[in-house]
Amino acid sequence: MIDNLKYPSINIALPDWVEPFLAGKTGPIKDLEERMRLVVALSRENVRHDLGGPFAAAVFDDAGNLVAPGVNRVTAMNCSVLHAEIVAIALAQQAVGRFDLSDGGRRHFDLVTATEPCAMCFGAVCWSGIRRLVCGARDEDARAVGFDEGPKLENWIAALNERGILVVRDVCREEAVKVHRDYVAAGGPIYNSGQAFREGMQEPE
Amino acid sequence: MIDNLKYPSINIALPDWVEPFLAGKTGPIKDLEERMRLVVALSRENVRHDLGGPFAAAVFDDAGNLVAPGVNRVTAMNCSVLHAEIVAIALAQQAVGRFDLSDGGRRHFDLVTATEPCAMCFGAVCWSGIRRLVCGARDEDARAVGFDEGPKLENWIAALNERGILVVRDVCREEAVKVHRDYVAAGGPIYNSGQAFREGMQEPE
Repeated sequence: MIDNLKYPSINIALPDWVEPFLAGKTGPIKDLEERMRLVVALSRENVRHDLGGPFAAAVFDDAGNLVAPGVNRVTAMNCSVLHAEIVAIALAQQAVGRFDLSDGGRRHFDLVTATEPCAMCFGAVCWSGIRRLVCGARDEDARAVGFDEGPKLENWIAALNERGILVVRDVCREEAVKVHRDYVAAGGPIYNSGQAFREGMQEPE
Repeated sequence: MIDNLKYPSINIALPDWVEPFLAGKTGPIKDLEERMRLVVALSRENVRHDLGGPFAAAVFDDAGNLVAPGVNRVTAMNCSVLHAEIVAIALAQQAVGRFDLSDGGRRHFDLVTATEPCAMCFGAVCWSGIRRLVCGARDEDARAVGFDEGPKLENWIAALNERGILVVRDVCREEAVKVHRDYVAAGGPIYNSGQAFREGMQEPE
């Protein structure tokens, strides 16, 4: 007798459109800009298909093969944790079968993200075993159109470097920013669960 | 024809022992210390059953009902994202059916965590809609026995307060710390995927 106690579970999975969209495009892709263009294209598709946030990411191995993509699933799955980077990291770790992608420093994986990581995803990168973080839009670009990146260390790049994680910025930055702008211009919602607090507990729009 | 492209998924779920363990204990629990003792007990059970990290958390509603528990599933699921707080937040959001637990500031939920959040979980709290974070062991307690909390803002509590999230510290701190110490004394692994980097890419122990 356990009081009918039953907790839910949640399956982190990609939406159906991702696999056909990526078919034939998963590499190996040597060029960083080419990898980023694919990720930016994913961010655009995530808006078009699911009205999700204009965010995408992907883990690539050292040969440039796309190991796992991620798209923002927050609204689609009712889960604030499911930023694109989190999805890509979790699925890449499933693909390789270990929680440390680097396997103790022996393997190299990149996380390519269309926008610099928020406060949560910054921390997630630290634990992932990712060796290099490749970013498109800057966090100030995301903030400029109303997205909230959360409270980040001012020196977040140095903090990653100290952990042996290289950071490459501004790869196809303008193309990544354009997806933000198009999303906002099309009336895409800016969801920040903290927003109501900062505005004095007003009703959300 | 999609090149046999197939990405994995991952189901965030509690281990089987959690539901029977919690049967009859899920409240309403008015007292914060009593809530914390239950969470600390979960952290202890997580070590005993799954040799998981000595970390647990739970979301409670304003009446003190346990909405969703979380335990560290990093090694069990091969997923570095699955800290106890992340599991509790994700499952609580599934339980209530929205990604903002606060529902735009109208609802109050606590996250009770046996140890102060790491850098990632700090960010996750910002997006969760949690209104109050209740902590047992301090992050310096976790660091003292070798756990890595990651690069956190020095003023992380103030940063949460600015977002309308209250923080209560040191609730049953000694009981929470004892679980860390017992885990380490029993030879429980301290897994930090960044460890190898900081030690010059040595093999992990």
